Amino acid sequence: MKLPVSTEWVLHCATTLAQLEPRATASAAQLADYFDLPAPYLAKQLKALAKAGVLTATPGPRGGYRLARPAADITLLQIVEAVDGAASPYECHEIRQQGRGALSPEDCRHTCVIAVKMAEAHQAWKRSLAGVTLADILGEIPPWAPARTRSLLSGS
Amino acid sequence: MKLPVSTEWVLHCATTLAQLEPRATASAAQLADYFDLPAPYLAKQLKALAKAGVLTATPGPRGGYRLARPAADITLLQIVEAVDGAASPYECHEIRQQGRGALSPEDCRHTCVIAVKMAEAHQAWKRSLAGVTLADILGEIPPWAPARTRSLLSGS
Repeated sequence: MKLPVSTEWVLHCATTLAQLEPRATASAAQLADYFDLPAPYLAKQLKALAKAGVLTATPGPRGGYRLARPAADITLLQIVEAVDGAASPYECHEIRQQGRGALSPEDCRHTCVIAVKMAEAHQAWKRSLAGVTLADILGEIPPWAPARTRSLLSGS
Repeated sequence: MKLPVSTEWVLHCATTLAQLEPRATASAAQLADYFDLPAPYLAKQLKALAKAGVLTATPGPRGGYRLARPAADITLLQIVEAVDGAASPYECHEIRQQGRGALSPEDCRHTCVIAVKMAEAHQAWKRSLAGVTLADILGEIPPWAPARTRSLLSGS
């Protein structure tokens, strides 16, 4: 069970964008440079974040990305699901209905209790990440960090 | 983020073994037949469950698998981790320490707050699955199911 490597990228990029002045933007190239990440692949992930409504893309040569809404309204779950989807890691293929021990369709009108418990665990994971916003993350970084971030990012 | 397809297999096989009479066993071939699963691949997963201490393998022509301890002492988490490991799906590659924005090692003595939040979500997932035992699962299947399971399994 692995999240894509880009999960770390988008969480850090969104945290970086959350440190910009209001309406300021950063381009995919700037963010790639800031974290030394492969620019084309990062660009694809940032587009996914924009498509999911987490970021807003402003077009043009001076364009770039900014948060689509206040940092307090963007959760880690929204960022993670933008690049990895919302599906549960557990896939139920209804093996209870196959083989020598196959249950009848009538006996399978309710979701398999194992699938229910696996779904509950996924909900617990989601609730945890839905309870953390970018504003919460900013509240835990050092006070000097945002000014440094803005300075290094704009210089690239 | 996907669990292996065999996660469903081992959860159902462990639930099946939990329905046997005390000290009764079922072979990998019987379980594969019961759920119409590829026997060699299932055998490998059952071995992993035995290695993890969830099942006990009894050798010999009449041998097979049984639960290594009472169903109330085996959690879904132990079963899932036996085949998929205990690692968090989120991998932190410390990108905060690379690129133009690289933080110094001194500024990274504490775990990255993003990694901390992702680890907390994984802990929530683990807690959820650690809170469900095979006995809990048995408590939610129909009263007629165990006798049917034993009958169909032993007939194969």
